[in-house]
Amino acid sequence: MPSPEQIRATVHRYLELVAEGTAAEIAALYAEDATVEDPVGSPVHQGRAAIEQFYSALEAVQNKTELFALRIGGENEAAFSFRVVTETGDQTITIDPIDVMTFDENARITSMRAFWSPADIAFA
Amino acid sequence: MPSPEQIRATVHRYLELVAEGTAAEIAALYAEDATVEDPVGSPVHQGRAAIEQFYSALEAVQNKTELFALRIGGENEAAFSFRVVTETGDQTITIDPIDVMTFDENARITSMRAFWSPADIAFA
Repeated sequence: MPSPEQIRATVHRYLELVAEGTAAEIAALYAEDATVEDPVGSPVHQGRAAIEQFYSALEAVQNKTELFALRIGGENEAAFSFRVVTETGDQTITIDPIDVMTFDENARITSMRAFWSPADIAFA
Repeated sequence: MPSPEQIRATVHRYLELVAEGTAAEIAALYAEDATVEDPVGSPVHQGRAAIEQFYSALEAVQNKTELFALRIGGENEAAFSFRVVTETGDQTITIDPIDVMTFDENARITSMRAFWSPADIAFA
C-alpha cells in the first residue's frame, strides 16, 4: 500500500501539473487502466490515453491551483478540496472542486472523481 | 432523485444535529439500511440502529460545526469539507474532515464516508 506521504506527494504533483504541466504528464500520474469521472455524474474516462485526451483541454489555457485541505482515508484513498483559476484571455474562471482519489501501491492514481457542478463556477 | 436543494438541506441539517442534536435525530437523517464509514478504512456501521449507536458518543460532549464547502456530484452524491470543534471539558479537539455522502430519492443519507486520519486532529 502507498504511504500517506506518497499519496500526499501525488496529490501535490497533480495540482502542480494541472497548473503547469502537459496532459501527458498528468496522465502519467494515473495507473494504466485508471478512471476519471469529472464531474461526478458525467461519462467516465478509462485508461491513460482517454485520460490524456481529457486533460488536453487544459493546455490551451493558463491555470493556477491551490490546495485547501487534503485528507487521507484508509490505506489508499484521499479527498481534497482545492481551487483552479483559469485565465482564458477573455475571462477568469474560478472553481473549487472536491476530488476523491484512490491509489495503487506506487501511489499512482487508480480513480478520480471530481465533485462540482456548473453552479459552483465563478466567472469574472 | 433528490434535488440539489434537498441534498443541501440534508447536509446543513446533519451539521446542525452533529452540533446540537441527539444520536436518534442524526440517525433519522439516514435511510434504514444506510452505511457509515468514519473514518474511511474503519469498520462500516450498517443500519439505523448501528448508526445511532455510533453517534451516541457525541451526546456526552459539546460540539460546534462549520461548513466550509459543499459540492453536489451527479444526481445523488455530495462531498463537503467542514470543521467539528469538540469541548470535552478538559480540552478542545478540532478536526476538519471531508465527508462523501450518497442520498435516496427523499434526500435521506444512504452512505457516508468520512475522510480524516489521526494526524488531522488538533488538540488545544
